[in-house]
Amino acid sequence: MIQAGIIGATGYTGIELYRLLRSHPAVQIAWLTSENSAGQRLSDLFPCPWDEPLLAMADAPLAEADVVFLCLPHAASMPAVAAVRAAGVKAIDLSADFRLHDAATYQRWYQTPHSQPALLAEAVYGLPELHRAEIAGAGLVANPGCYPTSVILGLTPLARAGWLAGQVIADSKSGVSGAGRKPSLTTSFVEANENLSPYSIGYSHRHIAEMEQELKAEGGTMNDERQKLQIVFSPHLLPVSRGILSTLYVTLPDSVDEAAVRAAYNDAYRGEPFVHLLPAGKVATLQHVVHSNRCAIGLTFVPNSPTLIVTSSIDNLLKGASGQAVQNMNVLFGLAETMGLRNT
Amino acid sequence: MIQAGIIGATGYTGIELYRLLRSHPAVQIAWLTSENSAGQRLSDLFPCPWDEPLLAMADAPLAEADVVFLCLPHAASMPAVAAVRAAGVKAIDLSADFRLHDAATYQRWYQTPHSQPALLAEAVYGLPELHRAEIAGAGLVANPGCYPTSVILGLTPLARAGWLAGQVIADSKSGVSGAGRKPSLTTSFVEANENLSPYSIGYSHRHIAEMEQELKAEGGTMNDERQKLQIVFSPHLLPVSRGILSTLYVTLPDSVDEAAVRAAYNDAYRGEPFVHLLPAGKVATLQHVVHSNRCAIGLTFVPNSPTLIVTSSIDNLLKGASGQAVQNMNVLFGLAETMGLRNT
Amino acid sequence: MIQAGIIGATGYTGIELYRLLRSHPAVQIAWLTSENSAGQRLSDLFPCPWDEPLLAMADAPLAEADVVFLCLPHAASMPAVAAVRAAGVKAIDLSADFRLHDAATYQRWYQTPHSQPALLAEAVYGLPELHRAEIAGAGLVANPGCYPTSVILGLTPLARAGWLAGQVIADSKSGVSGAGRKPSLTTSFVEANENLSPYSIGYSHRHIAEMEQELKAEGGTMNDERQKLQIVFSPHLLPVSRGILSTLYVTLPDSVDEAAVRAAYNDAYRGEPFVHLLPAGKVATLQHVVHSNRCAIGLTFVPNSPTLIVTSSIDNLLKGASGQAVQNMNVLFGLAETMGLRNT
Amino acid sequence: MIQAGIIGATGYTGIELYRLLRSHPAVQIAWLTSENSAGQRLSDLFPCPWDEPLLAMADAPLAEADVVFLCLPHAASMPAVAAVRAAGVKAIDLSADFRLHDAATYQRWYQTPHSQPALLAEAVYGLPELHRAEIAGAGLVANPGCYPTSVILGLTPLARAGWLAGQVIADSKSGVSGAGRKPSLTTSFVEANENLSPYSIGYSHRHIAEMEQELKAEGGTMNDERQKLQIVFSPHLLPVSRGILSTLYVTLPDSVDEAAVRAAYNDAYRGEPFVHLLPAGKVATLQHVVHSNRCAIGLTFVPNSPTLIVTSSIDNLLKGASGQAVQNMNVLFGLAETMGLRNT
Repeated sequence: MIQAGIIGATGYTGIELYRLLRSHPAVQIAWLTSENSAGQRLSDLFPCPWDEPLLAMADAPLAEADVVFLCLPHAASMPAVAAVRAAGVKAIDLSADFRLHDAATYQRWYQTPHSQPALLAEAVYGLPELHRAEIAGAGLVANPGCYPTSVILGLTPLARAGWLAGQVIADSKSGVSGAGRKPSLTTSFVEANENLSPYSIGYSHRHIAEMEQELKAEGGTMNDERQKLQIVFSPHLLPVSRGILSTLYVTLPDSVDEAAVRAAYNDAYRGEPFVHLLPAGKVATLQHVVHSNRCAIGLTFVPNSPTLIVTSSIDNLLKGASGQAVQNMNVLFGLAETMGLRNT
Repeated sequence: MIQAGIIGATGYTGIELYRLLRSHPAVQIAWLTSENSAGQRLSDLFPCPWDEPLLAMADAPLAEADVVFLCLPHAASMPAVAAVRAAGVKAIDLSADFRLHDAATYQRWYQTPHSQPALLAEAVYGLPELHRAEIAGAGLVANPGCYPTSVILGLTPLARAGWLAGQVIADSKSGVSGAGRKPSLTTSFVEANENLSPYSIGYSHRHIAEMEQELKAEGGTMNDERQKLQIVFSPHLLPVSRGILSTLYVTLPDSVDEAAVRAAYNDAYRGEPFVHLLPAGKVATLQHVVHSNRCAIGLTFVPNSPTLIVTSSIDNLLKGASGQAVQNMNVLFGLAETMGLRNT
Repeated sequence: MIQAGIIGATGYTGIELYRLLRSHPAVQIAWLTSENSAGQRLSDLFPCPWDEPLLAMADAPLAEADVVFLCLPHAASMPAVAAVRAAGVKAIDLSADFRLHDAATYQRWYQTPHSQPALLAEAVYGLPELHRAEIAGAGLVANPGCYPTSVILGLTPLARAGWLAGQVIADSKSGVSGAGRKPSLTTSFVEANENLSPYSIGYSHRHIAEMEQELKAEGGTMNDERQKLQIVFSPHLLPVSRGILSTLYVTLPDSVDEAAVRAAYNDAYRGEPFVHLLPAGKVATLQHVVHSNRCAIGLTFVPNSPTLIVTSSIDNLLKGASGQAVQNMNVLFGLAETMGLRNT
Repeated sequence: MIQAGIIGATGYTGIELYRLLRSHPAVQIAWLTSENSAGQRLSDLFPCPWDEPLLAMADAPLAEADVVFLCLPHAASMPAVAAVRAAGVKAIDLSADFRLHDAATYQRWYQTPHSQPALLAEAVYGLPELHRAEIAGAGLVANPGCYPTSVILGLTPLARAGWLAGQVIADSKSGVSGAGRKPSLTTSFVEANENLSPYSIGYSHRHIAEMEQELKAEGGTMNDERQKLQIVFSPHLLPVSRGILSTLYVTLPDSVDEAAVRAAYNDAYRGEPFVHLLPAGKVATLQHVVHSNRCAIGLTFVPNSPTLIVTSSIDNLLKGASGQAVQNMNVLFGLAETMGLRNT
């Protein structure tokens, strides 16, 4: 049995991870931490029957774990990951701290210097559909952001074919759990219910950095054209608890037809257990994916126009966070990639 | 034109009052206050076009108003009402501070002594269907609580007929706006959405005091039997923004039949513009009342049993708070009682 | 008092119109019709206290009305409008039947020939912010579609300035009431709740025709460039009862800067009572507009890019249907344009 | 591997059962049927990736299954169960057809005669917490109704102790999936959203029969007092997709105190994997149970009163239907009772 620890178990991604790991056939949960709630039990904080104790991170026996999942805010994760790695334990970090390969880019988007450049160099971007082989041998996996997972999986086949250039519109809509469990006016029921709010639009949301990094990398050589790729990313707060739908607008090169595009997607995702490529005429919705680890992708072509509309949906807490983290763990430890995720 | 001031304009009841008063044909809004947001404008705090300035209460020209509405937390309202009345201005208080006639009862339920006993003696409980005449001549109107409005209107005809005694079950369900605008975990979207939570059940919610006071008073002479009236009140947090439904279970005396009960309700509410008595076979729902100042009441009899089920619904922000406050103002100033409320 | 009749009063737009008209100070409701529910009363069909009788259209005394509102499905409205006009009564048609000036375009999008070409020639597109003067003298007003209202108001200032050309992305999200009251699987609670579904994407939704007609007309001379305007319109079904948000992506000409764009919007909407132009840094949300007749518009510029993001929101049942119909009636009869709409 | 068939796989309970069984470690799905959708695939009807074919019932190879789950409307299930049993296959029936032991009682509540009295005599009421031993050897398990599961589990310890008599108030609230997948006005999004509707109140809902049958049986000898047990059951339609909360009001005998009641519940449910008895001071909510097979039970005592308030919640599609059916299957086949249900 793999011994797993969770640092920061009392946010929405932490508790979701706990739910997945406690029923994973190959995992035993070693310990949970929570800085704010150390000394309490999960059942004190959530409507659940699990009287699992919560430790302060300083009291967690890191070395007793085979793998540690970190569900901390960005910046807070850098020293915590360092401590886990120093204890010789594999780390799967759900924060943004190790997703961007370039420390300067990190500093520009997150307004704080990167304190662990050596670990950054070691980190693998944990999107198994793109980086399965590197994840398998990694010590530190940077679990992708929720929005980037939906956008990157939605566009990767185009990038690989060399068809992704210039401006791409990513109009994304996310459920409220994506904003975390800390109370705020914006995420209050009466404010978010019966509402829809764009936020951080106009090329200002931090997740853009991940999207561009990964899609440029998939685009092959960093030629001039490719570097001009710009994701105009518009997140909207949606009155649902979980789920992300990204509606992506891409201008295809003139020479590319529908059959070629469908072939590219089929090639990219053949055999992927967690990508559900929809047949022609179908679009991705939240109900395709909530409570599952899947990403659903639909392709709609605008007649007499080079515009392709890709609809891509995930559950932000599963394929967009904790489910993907378990998938990464399965890859890391050589288990069947769907283990513990089949029912979700 | 009646000059109206609002103290505490930036909670849900305050902004609702503002919406009503700005379109009321006989009212001009004199000023608004907010302790937390003085110096800002309504449009800074709410998604609305109204650039109305917010004053600190100390800066509000009380005496320029003909009537002041107070939307403050309990305890905070006592000195504020005193200041308004000292300025010779009529007050409609939406807090709980002047609803209970007996200072000792207030202290027992609100765990703070009543600092304004003289004003308490002057205050009228502002449920026009019960106290219209007294409200008309009042200087201080204590606007009822939201839950009590639904329960008292639902049971008053029984109390008047002398049929309300012993234990009454009031299983009430309220939308989240009833909890106010201050962010909290309980009222966060992800916690309240797709959920239903009982709270303060087991005879512990403060609104019981109002319910029992008013229903005992309507029951005529305080004979022994009547004093044993006990409202077992169970509020539940409902995943809607607004609306309260109270499902009330009453054991009728053996001699009382359905026709007599219906006659009692018809008599009590004949001509009431804001009570919608439903025909036999219908039950009250939230959609009967949300965005209106009405209370809908349905009567269902359990066959071969002395049990009557009363369903009573209101919009907690209108008939349960700000709409009722405007109705009280209309009574106070001798206007048509429905003025400014007909469209809601 | 203006005598008003409503044909098709028992859908969501019909009942909303009834609510508005019954509290309109200058209107008396003459009669209501419903083909499916003739002989019943409003209170039989909706949770409301209004025992208003419903006639079959054949029994409605058309000539007793000064104005008739038609809330019928497309195609059904053509003969009904003809009957109303034959009776010499002004008509405000909420269907799609008279919105497109060109009968051939109507036939292409609605797959049925237009049976009333003479009336079509007479009809005015009822968006007061664009066609106020023509509406004032009209006999037949074609009330705009809900999506088109949000998109056209969001883009008109750009069209007028000559800055709207090529492909525009309109990613729109609508509440479920937009689909009407007839039960269907798609609009069932369990299917729509906690979901978000794109539908009719890829240049296939009928509302595109209205959008392009009006925006091309505002664009001045129909030069070649202008005719290439194409609205890539992507509607999404949103889990809210009411409200539309359109997120619009426009590529501005190189020479146009933010100040010029803001000036164009200010010029276009100065003095408009129902357009709420948001200050820089703000975006339109549903809560800016639901239960009001306003359209909220926000402008967000993508740095170092010619891309402008316009967010435009309305209440689909008010500014998107029945509120706009009342606004049109006010214009038609020379009343204050906000009469009966101020509180909404 | 157990071969399982599902008759009626395309309602909400059918698809939920499919989800559970496809990841159950000891089950292989043999076939699915749907009378309305035979010839189609699951992925044609639901937003899911499962291209599972749907047969007409007449084409289903009954005898190839070891167990058949029937998710049919009441009355339709009687002949279908007979066919399954005639094929020598174990049946778990999710309809109401075999829940009531007495054919006359069935006929009174369901207004149709019972066509299979011999099978009725054989059927076991499939609430494992009450009838585990009988289920283990059964050929036909009648899976309980959703409301009854929450009410019976909430009250059984009181019945067993002989403390349940007279009138019990069961104020229950259910998510919309309980009404099935067939579109109707009542379950349309706009009607159910932001609403709460009592329905079938006043001792008229069919589920009362099950509740009284089981609770009387648990109450031991059918003495006079016990037979007077009457469940005043008030269901309410709640704007959530799934979940039931029952708030139960019981008058305890004078001699019974809180400690005795808690002991009775502890005794009844010690070791039960799917009953979550909450500690003092806590109440059951929907979020305790949705997406799990658990029933959460809280006990609240009204001070100075013989009234006990029991809050009992379940997921209507899991412990209230398909999860319980899988639990019954596990018991039937001697598997660990939590198998395939641990993650839910």
